Amino acid sequence: MIKVDVNCDLGESFGPWKMGRDEKIIPLVSSANIACGFHGGDPLVMRRTVALVKKHGVAAGAHPGFPDLAGFGRRPMGLSPEEVKAAVQYQIGALDGFCRAAGIPLMHVKPHGALYNMAAQDMDLARAIAEAVKEINPRLILLVPAGSRMAAAAAETGLAAAREVFADRAYEEDGALSPRSKPGSVITGEDEVLNRVVGMIKTGKVRAITGKEISVTADSVCIHGDGEGALVFAQKLNGVFAREGISVVPLSQICGA
Amino acid sequence: MIKVDVNCDLGESFGPWKMGRDEKIIPLVSSANIACGFHGGDPLVMRRTVALVKKHGVAAGAHPGFPDLAGFGRRPMGLSPEEVKAAVQYQIGALDGFCRAAGIPLMHVKPHGALYNMAAQDMDLARAIAEAVKEINPRLILLVPAGSRMAAAAAETGLAAAREVFADRAYEEDGALSPRSKPGSVITGEDEVLNRVVGMIKTGKVRAITGKEISVTADSVCIHGDGEGALVFAQKLNGVFAREGISVVPLSQICGA
Amino acid sequence: MIKVDVNCDLGESFGPWKMGRDEKIIPLVSSANIACGFHGGDPLVMRRTVALVKKHGVAAGAHPGFPDLAGFGRRPMGLSPEEVKAAVQYQIGALDGFCRAAGIPLMHVKPHGALYNMAAQDMDLARAIAEAVKEINPRLILLVPAGSRMAAAAAETGLAAAREVFADRAYEEDGALSPRSKPGSVITGEDEVLNRVVGMIKTGKVRAITGKEISVTADSVCIHGDGEGALVFAQKLNGVFAREGISVVPLSQICGA
Amino acid sequence: MIKVDVNCDLGESFGPWKMGRDEKIIPLVSSANIACGFHGGDPLVMRRTVALVKKHGVAAGAHPGFPDLAGFGRRPMGLSPEEVKAAVQYQIGALDGFCRAAGIPLMHVKPHGALYNMAAQDMDLARAIAEAVKEINPRLILLVPAGSRMAAAAAETGLAAAREVFADRAYEEDGALSPRSKPGSVITGEDEVLNRVVGMIKTGKVRAITGKEISVTADSVCIHGDGEGALVFAQKLNGVFAREGISVVPLSQICGA
Repeated sequence: MIKVDVNCDLGESFGPWKMGRDEKIIPLVSSANIACGFHGGDPLVMRRTVALVKKHGVAAGAHPGFPDLAGFGRRPMGLSPEEVKAAVQYQIGALDGFCRAAGIPLMHVKPHGALYNMAAQDMDLARAIAEAVKEINPRLILLVPAGSRMAAAAAETGLAAAREVFADRAYEEDGALSPRSKPGSVITGEDEVLNRVVGMIKTGKVRAITGKEISVTADSVCIHGDGEGALVFAQKLNGVFAREGISVVPLSQICGA
Repeated sequence: MIKVDVNCDLGESFGPWKMGRDEKIIPLVSSANIACGFHGGDPLVMRRTVALVKKHGVAAGAHPGFPDLAGFGRRPMGLSPEEVKAAVQYQIGALDGFCRAAGIPLMHVKPHGALYNMAAQDMDLARAIAEAVKEINPRLILLVPAGSRMAAAAAETGLAAAREVFADRAYEEDGALSPRSKPGSVITGEDEVLNRVVGMIKTGKVRAITGKEISVTADSVCIHGDGEGALVFAQKLNGVFAREGISVVPLSQICGA
Repeated sequence: MIKVDVNCDLGESFGPWKMGRDEKIIPLVSSANIACGFHGGDPLVMRRTVALVKKHGVAAGAHPGFPDLAGFGRRPMGLSPEEVKAAVQYQIGALDGFCRAAGIPLMHVKPHGALYNMAAQDMDLARAIAEAVKEINPRLILLVPAGSRMAAAAAETGLAAAREVFADRAYEEDGALSPRSKPGSVITGEDEVLNRVVGMIKTGKVRAITGKEISVTADSVCIHGDGEGALVFAQKLNGVFAREGISVVPLSQICGA
Repeated sequence: MIKVDVNCDLGESFGPWKMGRDEKIIPLVSSANIACGFHGGDPLVMRRTVALVKKHGVAAGAHPGFPDLAGFGRRPMGLSPEEVKAAVQYQIGALDGFCRAAGIPLMHVKPHGALYNMAAQDMDLARAIAEAVKEINPRLILLVPAGSRMAAAAAETGLAAAREVFADRAYEEDGALSPRSKPGSVITGEDEVLNRVVGMIKTGKVRAITGKEISVTADSVCIHGDGEGALVFAQKLNGVFAREGISVVPLSQICGA
């Protein structure tokens, strides 16, 4: 049986403002990346999202971001590695408090937005994140872009890493995501997107933006929870996976210690 | 041997702004109430304060407050019990993350400022706090004003509570603190303050503001860390305790499970 | 010609989170109460809302609230009158910056949420707000609940006040809003709501919750912009006003200096 | 008579946290850059700082920064030019509200920290700031590093710019500040610092880090208000200026429209 995890960013509402359709999306994924209050989420939202995740048997993960609510954690910020480490530990701890209160384990950590993008390319930030996670709980899984510095930092730190692929994005020959500014970097056409992701999961290979076939490890597929079509896409993805004999399972069954 | 805990609010610096003289005060107390980022403290300050507390073998506690940095958590806020519960769990979790990363246990929780004062008198808020604590870890000790609703809520919830006394404040006959607005409610004169606290600890009794002798349980004495004379007072208190045969020990040796 | 202002809270989106349907509502009102970043709104949202208001020739007003984003300014906070004064001036100034940049005048100020409710009943807060407004610009109009302390404070300070009525809320005999907790305090039934508001405007009278007819001054009618039916209600209200010969005009034509 | 402005960052306390010794420094400068609540300052601090500035007849300026309180606006943030423009207008407006309430004019704008450093080198950010200022009030003076993109953007926008020099920093041959990482970039030795600044003011020339003499325009000298020795340095600087016949005057007497 071929296995893959499906992860989605969730719990990104804040105060009176709603974002996403968590109640609908959660049943369609195996891992929830729950915002921790710095870029989205607030204590009440976090508590409710953990309850929802528990109800549906979906694995809970922390989704720490930069302290930038107005920018939703998408704007690069010049935090030092020490500041990143502390910010990540704060957010993991906060979410873990809700998990313990709900009686479910925290399973993974996936950095958010600009922090994710910066740490994918910056070894000092990547190490700060990996160490932050390991110090709190060495059994936590770090969810990282395949082929990134974060994957390298997890390996160096002795932390289990799950590599995620993006169904709708092109890759460079070295396995890195093609920047959005590059023509052809965003795959449109639902069929092509679905075929690509099934191919990556089943064959471990994908055609890079140059046309060359490269290797890729697809432990997890990311669904963007705040996009309009996220729900429809998640439903289609589940349908395709069922037909293709791909089983959606939590990360712990793929790369957990 | 007579035992008492000495607790102090710590880690209340924020970003570039320093508050308190934590390095000097920490060696003089047995329990540290560490700010959790809502009224003071930030991730880096929390991480460093936990390291300092560990170095000196002082017990770490969470000091959750209202989300009001500019008001330092001292302004009453109309949070619902559900919002209080979530805010308290968030902050306990965040601090516990740093404790786990440092390899020390989180021992107690003491609400801060307006949250502490409001919950002392409001059973719904008191229950929300006690439940928040118990759900995360039923062995945590709740540090409460002697004779308060928080003490009642801890008992009701089955949570260990440590009752703290204020050396420089008068009490009503029912054991509640006399409001600051009442003449005679603040004890001045260092000798009287020191005598009062020693009396409360050794005899379990204190003279109320009316002159009547009442019972009081003094599990812990609070030192105000941000006041100018805090350091000097803490040194004197330790000297007096040594002469009087009062041993300063962490809360876990007084009322822990 | 009978005249009335129609006001609505606008610009309450924040960062990535949308609230309200400002583009649709703005053409249906004469005064916009624009959030100033403390309970909602951010600099970019404020700038865009001012541009939208300018485009439709709607009067711009500042809508200052408590510094409580997660609570959307709806939770009471214990700010001192001095703190309220400073917070209100800060927010008025910020919005006025965008008005001046856009080349339109700031016309009025309406406090938001818990600040509005508290100042309606607390003369010290009401005075702090009225003085804050007057010091910045004595020609600004303060939009207040009819019969409130804020109306009294405006009079005392020499500030023009516009009294607003709520179409869907019952009144006590003294002209104060009946608290929501009281049976019958919220008027349901669209026809009754529309009839009530037309009656208040045309006759200056309304039947109190006790059944007794009382006087009321309806300079302005408030539309709740974030409710689902706000847009539909605003359209109906405009239709009814047109049929009844009630002209919707900005506050400056009703009570401006 | 040779004239120069002396400017200092002020009003950087926040809530319960004090920073700087504003009461002592303000009498020693001619222009105050007042924090606007994003990186430091809060409404009450701003109101009080404006009152202090008014009392001493010092010119008030806005000191807008990135929305990063914990990082004190010193961490680079990836705001778009449109976001920068809105953030700057918000902060200028907020401070101007207090100035108008106090009956004094707002005279200048000096960006803070990372925003200042980034805009010194990035023409898009520099233009966003210059336009933000001009739209609010074209008579405001923009205080900029000599030889920077901000100076160019001010010229392009038709805004008066005052060029400030740093007494304790070395310059490159092109007039840009030598980066702190470069050996010799920070001038130590009080006498050398004082001699350098007097030389720059009197001769319009300074020896670059390479040894070559370059031209420099010193409309204003910056005193770092939060450093320990700021007060002592400010006193010495005033003494030296008096002896050298250099008159300390506000920017409006140097480069105002």
